[in-house]
Amino acid sequence: MPKPSWARKDVDVLGIGMTSFGKRQESLKELAVTAAREAIADAGISVAELDAIYISNFLGGMLNGQQILGSIVANELGVAGVPTMTVEGACASGGIAFRQAYVNTACDVYDTVLVIGVEKMTVRSTQEITLAINSAMDQESLECKDGLTFPGYFGLVANQYLSQYGGTREDLASVVLKNREFAVANQKAQFREPIDLDRYLQAKMISSPLGLFDCSPISDGACAVVLSSRNEQSTSNSKVRVIASSQASGPTQLKDIEDLTTLSAIKIAANLAYNQADLTPADIDVVELHDCFSITEIISIEDLGFFEKGEGIKAVREGKTKLNGIIPVNTSGGLLSKGHPIGATGLAQIYQIVSQLRGTAANQVDGARIGLAENLGGTGAYATVHIFEAGH
Amino acid sequence: MPKPSWARKDVDVLGIGMTSFGKRQESLKELAVTAAREAIADAGISVAELDAIYISNFLGGMLNGQQILGSIVANELGVAGVPTMTVEGACASGGIAFRQAYVNTACDVYDTVLVIGVEKMTVRSTQEITLAINSAMDQESLECKDGLTFPGYFGLVANQYLSQYGGTREDLASVVLKNREFAVANQKAQFREPIDLDRYLQAKMISSPLGLFDCSPISDGACAVVLSSRNEQSTSNSKVRVIASSQASGPTQLKDIEDLTTLSAIKIAANLAYNQADLTPADIDVVELHDCFSITEIISIEDLGFFEKGEGIKAVREGKTKLNGIIPVNTSGGLLSKGHPIGATGLAQIYQIVSQLRGTAANQVDGARIGLAENLGGTGAYATVHIFEAGH
Repeated sequence: MPKPSWARKDVDVLGIGMTSFGKRQESLKELAVTAAREAIADAGISVAELDAIYISNFLGGMLNGQQILGSIVANELGVAGVPTMTVEGACASGGIAFRQAYVNTACDVYDTVLVIGVEKMTVRSTQEITLAINSAMDQESLECKDGLTFPGYFGLVANQYLSQYGGTREDLASVVLKNREFAVANQKAQFREPIDLDRYLQAKMISSPLGLFDCSPISDGACAVVLSSRNEQSTSNSKVRVIASSQASGPTQLKDIEDLTTLSAIKIAANLAYNQADLTPADIDVVELHDCFSITEIISIEDLGFFEKGEGIKAVREGKTKLNGIIPVNTSGGLLSKGHPIGATGLAQIYQIVSQLRGTAANQVDGARIGLAENLGGTGAYATVHIFEAGH
Repeated sequence: MPKPSWARKDVDVLGIGMTSFGKRQESLKELAVTAAREAIADAGISVAELDAIYISNFLGGMLNGQQILGSIVANELGVAGVPTMTVEGACASGGIAFRQAYVNTACDVYDTVLVIGVEKMTVRSTQEITLAINSAMDQESLECKDGLTFPGYFGLVANQYLSQYGGTREDLASVVLKNREFAVANQKAQFREPIDLDRYLQAKMISSPLGLFDCSPISDGACAVVLSSRNEQSTSNSKVRVIASSQASGPTQLKDIEDLTTLSAIKIAANLAYNQADLTPADIDVVELHDCFSITEIISIEDLGFFEKGEGIKAVREGKTKLNGIIPVNTSGGLLSKGHPIGATGLAQIYQIVSQLRGTAANQVDGARIGLAENLGGTGAYATVHIFEAGH
């Protein structure tokens, strides 16, 4: 596979670690350190081999009164001197932090880097959390001043999509039920109780047509990844190579959005990534994408190029994103059922793709060789796409 | 001059922009965009030439309820698609964001990058701001639970330093009065009213021996820098080259600090930077460093290698860091008198060094050719060092 023109070194994911998602007793720091230690052990390296640490976290300041997580974690791990920082891009913080870590490694600034995503959300009331999450909107925008929330925004999107391309709540349910079925088999997932269509339809309406199960939950959790260009370093046979890394931004205000049914940042980032890897969507065996709401998964499978615009709803209705479908999507359970501890989410997507390419995933896709992880922030303000290849 | 082994391209600062510091009427976004537009104009480029935007901000979530500043600013500038993110490392956020931008440019990932540092602090009460700043301590540490604040911490440091090496409040005053004198001549500075020793000594005690004037203030402001490897791009004769970039971390808890009178992260980062640039402290013509408190300036001139350990207090007493001293320090007025809008500080230090090397600074150092900027975060949790050279 080719690599970006600026990459001097091939970079592999050597290790992954992850706490279960859900309501956790541990502190923000403890969650981060637990995932980090697991990833370091999985990589088969010593902590002293880490050259830098990147942290993805969104709400540590607002919900936990805790920032400077990079230095805190470096001290806790016993590598107090290494360069470290926190990267913020709302719900895309994880993908962005991973990309910075990848770029610095591929460019030979560092040999071996740890990336940790973490969030501890359940410490506050739902109202406080909703307000904190709204910091991912432009506070000076009309819609923010008028009280729009994220469920409100994606409710608008869902209405527009369904009226423009057709479809029903039962179609949205096909995303929700698929992801819940995947989560039931994933020991790290927040929601492992099976649900059926009746339960879906009877659940509380949040922002019509999006009901409770169409919305990703409030979660605690952490996930960590060790990246390295020292490709001889790992003793494992399960190295997974990063073959594309891209990032783009999109509009932050409703007034700037031409088409509510497209997330432009995803399209830009996806095209960049496919070009870097010299691949097309048809080459991808397994995908983790940012299903913050059920409608977001439908739009994302279109913007990532797996289905034509307006065909996503038909695809999920027909089961084309299930385990034995054309392109299995969110085999981890996705944000909807695995959980969405915001800073951890982008890394947890990569955790699942790496597991798939190692052949050890919950809901394993037979013979998966190439996987893609897409992470979205805000109402489309940020997107990252990473593509991975098995067997190096 | 040599460059780091990983750098493929020479990188110049093409443009700088900065709002005045102090209590400002503009919003967080407006401050950021104002500084950005000034830097882009100063660089003589069009906004469409920007490949990426890095934001340094510490308290946007906690004080302003505003995150995702990268995407918001990209949209406001009219380059909605470019990759962008916020970087957080407490008071060192600016230096860290600049370093990420520099690395990505030097490694040829991007050609031209905008870095913006911004903070809007005066919107809340002093108590709320103090609490927010305390998020730069480990919330699980004993001292944090016991109510230690940053003035409290650096008061401890000052007591230890003065008892170990000798010195008086009059010596601390020599830092404060020097920086205030510089600020009087700097139109961007927050405090431009001259003060004398009597006024210093009569001011309210904050955390003995640190009085009001020994402590950096609460400030609003923004600063922006355009970096580029397209060295032919600028029409100006005032390009300034980045010749070293380094970062290190240090302890986050009192129990892990062996010597309160040293900031280990500064020492590590400084040595890395001098090695990269193949320079010694004696080669540096002008310095901006992180005088969050007067004592921090004294310790930092030692840890940066300008004076032996314990000799810093004598050096400031004897005027060796004044404009015509051995090494002029904080000619901008420093954090103490220029102001300390946290996310903007690391960039504002670079603004002053670039101005010095262009020969256009407030308090110009005659013939300055090589300048150094040092940015500190937390109680020594992060440090960055950047070295610049004039005349490329």
